[in-house]
Amino acid sequence: MNRVVGVDIGGTKVLAGVVDAEGNVSARLRLDTPHRSKQAAVVEDTIVAAVGHLRNDDDIRGVGVAAAGFVDVAGSTVMFSPHLSWRDEPLKAALEQRLGIPVLVDNDANTTAWAELRFGAGRGYQQMLCITLGTGIGGALVIDGRVFRGANGMAGEFGHMQVVPDGRRCECGNRGCWEQYSSGNVLVREARELVEAQSPAAFQLRELVDGDASRLTGPIVTEAARAGDPSAIEMLREIGDWLGTGLASLTAAFDPEVIIIGGGVSDADDLLLDPAREALRRKLTGRGFRPEPPVLKAELGPDAGFIGAADLARQALEDGRL
Amino acid sequence: MNRVVGVDIGGTKVLAGVVDAEGNVSARLRLDTPHRSKQAAVVEDTIVAAVGHLRNDDDIRGVGVAAAGFVDVAGSTVMFSPHLSWRDEPLKAALEQRLGIPVLVDNDANTTAWAELRFGAGRGYQQMLCITLGTGIGGALVIDGRVFRGANGMAGEFGHMQVVPDGRRCECGNRGCWEQYSSGNVLVREARELVEAQSPAAFQLRELVDGDASRLTGPIVTEAARAGDPSAIEMLREIGDWLGTGLASLTAAFDPEVIIIGGGVSDADDLLLDPAREALRRKLTGRGFRPEPPVLKAELGPDAGFIGAADLARQALEDGRL
Repeated sequence: MNRVVGVDIGGTKVLAGVVDAEGNVSARLRLDTPHRSKQAAVVEDTIVAAVGHLRNDDDIRGVGVAAAGFVDVAGSTVMFSPHLSWRDEPLKAALEQRLGIPVLVDNDANTTAWAELRFGAGRGYQQMLCITLGTGIGGALVIDGRVFRGANGMAGEFGHMQVVPDGRRCECGNRGCWEQYSSGNVLVREARELVEAQSPAAFQLRELVDGDASRLTGPIVTEAARAGDPSAIEMLREIGDWLGTGLASLTAAFDPEVIIIGGGVSDADDLLLDPAREALRRKLTGRGFRPEPPVLKAELGPDAGFIGAADLARQALEDGRL
Repeated sequence: MNRVVGVDIGGTKVLAGVVDAEGNVSARLRLDTPHRSKQAAVVEDTIVAAVGHLRNDDDIRGVGVAAAGFVDVAGSTVMFSPHLSWRDEPLKAALEQRLGIPVLVDNDANTTAWAELRFGAGRGYQQMLCITLGTGIGGALVIDGRVFRGANGMAGEFGHMQVVPDGRRCECGNRGCWEQYSSGNVLVREARELVEAQSPAAFQLRELVDGDASRLTGPIVTEAARAGDPSAIEMLREIGDWLGTGLASLTAAFDPEVIIIGGGVSDADDLLLDPAREALRRKLTGRGFRPEPPVLKAELGPDAGFIGAADLARQALEDGRL
């Protein structure tokens, strides 16, 4: 009776697991996220199905849901999601009605940051910037050991800061958002463009997908880079450079103790992080006259989102807030 | 015995005053900031002189200094200043030795935000973003009613976030910093360029300075805009548009309750703020699905920096921290 289910709804996949008070995961599953053209109710069905798979009726106290969207400060409504079909979606109420147990909803980047702070690379820090490079850029700021949510629960949307005037169009509707220059989507887009351009530089990448650019994924490009493919290394370097450029701006703004990078793209390790560290060092205002925050890879991998959601739900249950 | 002196060292001028516990100013003076090529000691001399003018030996408890630079979290050392000649300057110790009373040093944007929160446009708010448009851009974030300082006291340097890749060179050493597109310096630079280009559009501005572009200042351009000069109005609109673009990014990041705009350029009122509000509305991610923060003009004018410094010093004295 001390376990909580965490469910993480990302742009492409749903990860869920049963989590104990020490952050240990005792059961885990993965489903595809319904296509964004689908109704929000279909995403709800997926969450209910995931919890159903993991649940034995008497041993789960509550559910924490991590959503790739703007969640209100009460943890109940998804106001807007660039990568999902939610708009003003009262997710908490809908899920509690269908599941019959308390549900907490939070932004996936917030839950990831919380998991890393409690159980991962952020242990021991109080002021932390956490960036999740997945489909887009998730962001969260930990201040004095707590996730900072802003006036309406929507702080941390760093991926939608404008970094290029009149730049690339973003799913959020704007142009030039940071996540259009540094994210998993960018890695895949760049790799596909290179292959489709029939460039000799794309020889190895093209072979890996038998010439079918549409089969390229972030993990394939990362694997190619690890194997030494210069084009794949270069693409990760560009994304890393944009990552570090944004980190320099965010360090100017927040002055964090530490920066933690998670999300699927961070599987590229130093092929991504070294260019990011270099750009941060080169572009940080006042450099040489201030401490520079270390840039660390997140430790919990793709489970971080649901682990953090479950732990936040557990804490809310224990505090009587849920 | 309940009064404190506040001194604000800006890029071009020093303002100082005697401040009581309600934020009332009973004496005030203004000096020129020594040229940046001068030694830091000359700036110290100016501060000592200002305090000397305002002080009757037995009635001043302490001094609050607002500095246009990166101040450490202890409020004692100016680590770096893009617009002054300080580098790792132990300003607090030097001034306390010369003045014989306790001195607190803080960033000028932090003190301005604090003054507005306590006595000005920010009364009643808990989550506030404050932007000071002067020589450059000063920034401060109020979280839960307190100025957020970051891990090392250097948070809020929003003016040095990169908004244009490979953009204009900044005094901080980087390129493309926000304050190179929206600040008093930009207004003056643009106006001088227009006059020097002999453009017919600069007819009215040229007349105001008898053809001598070097005599143009921010207040002259603002006055011309108020009088209806289309070029001056257009320059304020461009700066306002860049202001709003940055505010949209900062609202994505912080989700503030309210945004307060101070500094000399804000004297242009809605000629600056309306274009800023419009750009914020147009570029805020998730707009239409979230509350949008109001953009208000600061109320305390140029005195805010020293009033806030004095009040922070007073609070530190009362809490036994100074």
